[in-house]
Amino acid sequence: MAAPIEFYFDFASPYGYLAATQIDALGARAGRTVDWKPILLGAVFKVTGQRPLMERPLAGDYLLHDVPRFARLLGVKLTIPERMPIAALAACRAFWWLQPDRPELARLLAQAVYRAHWGEGRDLGPAEAVAEVAADLGIDPAALAEGIQDPAVKDRLRAVNEEAVAKGVFGSPFFIVDGEPFWGADRMGQLERWLETGGW
Amino acid sequence: MAAPIEFYFDFASPYGYLAATQIDALGARAGRTVDWKPILLGAVFKVTGQRPLMERPLAGDYLLHDVPRFARLLGVKLTIPERMPIAALAACRAFWWLQPDRPELARLLAQAVYRAHWGEGRDLGPAEAVAEVAADLGIDPAALAEGIQDPAVKDRLRAVNEEAVAKGVFGSPFFIVDGEPFWGADRMGQLERWLETGGW
Repeated sequence: MAAPIEFYFDFASPYGYLAATQIDALGARAGRTVDWKPILLGAVFKVTGQRPLMERPLAGDYLLHDVPRFARLLGVKLTIPERMPIAALAACRAFWWLQPDRPELARLLAQAVYRAHWGEGRDLGPAEAVAEVAADLGIDPAALAEGIQDPAVKDRLRAVNEEAVAKGVFGSPFFIVDGEPFWGADRMGQLERWLETGGW
Repeated sequence: MAAPIEFYFDFASPYGYLAATQIDALGARAGRTVDWKPILLGAVFKVTGQRPLMERPLAGDYLLHDVPRFARLLGVKLTIPERMPIAALAACRAFWWLQPDRPELARLLAQAVYRAHWGEGRDLGPAEAVAEVAADLGIDPAALAEGIQDPAVKDRLRAVNEEAVAKGVFGSPFFIVDGEPFWGADRMGQLERWLETGGW
């Protein structure tokens, strides 16, 4: 069976959100499944000495113009959140609490978190906000609150972050398929072409 | 008459090179001329606190994989230079010595510098190397050596750099048309679509 597309992203990343609205359909067209892998880019930035794009002079202003324009092109709902960038620790841990045992629910939660944060502009930093979104998927808030404090869950997130750095991931979204890395929502065209053609 | 596409780039930028091989044809298809505007991103990075992509951990490794892959897709000749990033001061000044009086020659020089540096991997930092490339276009090396020391030429480059920062340019390539900014070689598809449709 063909290897899945590894999809690394940070919930704080608007380009990750745009990619998240497209990647499953892209994978389906190419006959590939998608492994959703939320990470905390803050940990990666410690290695690379970077700051989030939205916090950089000039680049931050560009992002506020470019992301809505890109969203309109894709026909994707977007609301620039009042609070950004969020620290997506609770959302990440909630995902990795569900993953790998309940992968379908984990992905639905990731999509719901992204939609709430970037689609509706809500602050998804606090664990309570994540629990609220999760509750709409039938996830018990008390179980989630306990789950994201589980040391095994914390370890899982830490391990995925380390795996990401080891594989060269330095931004969001970042795709790896058959060992081939693609960085950025605007590279999904090349990613799809790579899968269609077997590479060039 | 429709406004030109402003094309800001740094000779040290491989993505600027890839864009340079495509932008005139894109402009022609859209009925737009292209204003080539080489700048020194180092001056911009002082404002934004950035480092060149190729010097950043992880991102630098990605670039060395991605740029050749992108070049193959475009069918563009590429040789990763042994020396990079270069300080493209002499090349920039040589361009702005020719511009605005001899715009066609200035653009031919820019293309020749890019081809020598990123197509053939030559070190285009030294003024002598720029003069050598210019000589193939019939430009007198002594006149160029004198021209790039002209205070008026130095001022022109400084002014373009300041203009770039004032317009929000923070990377290479960077396009502005009808006030609309597009950053990155992989955004040329959106740029072209914007020109075709009048925006969205």
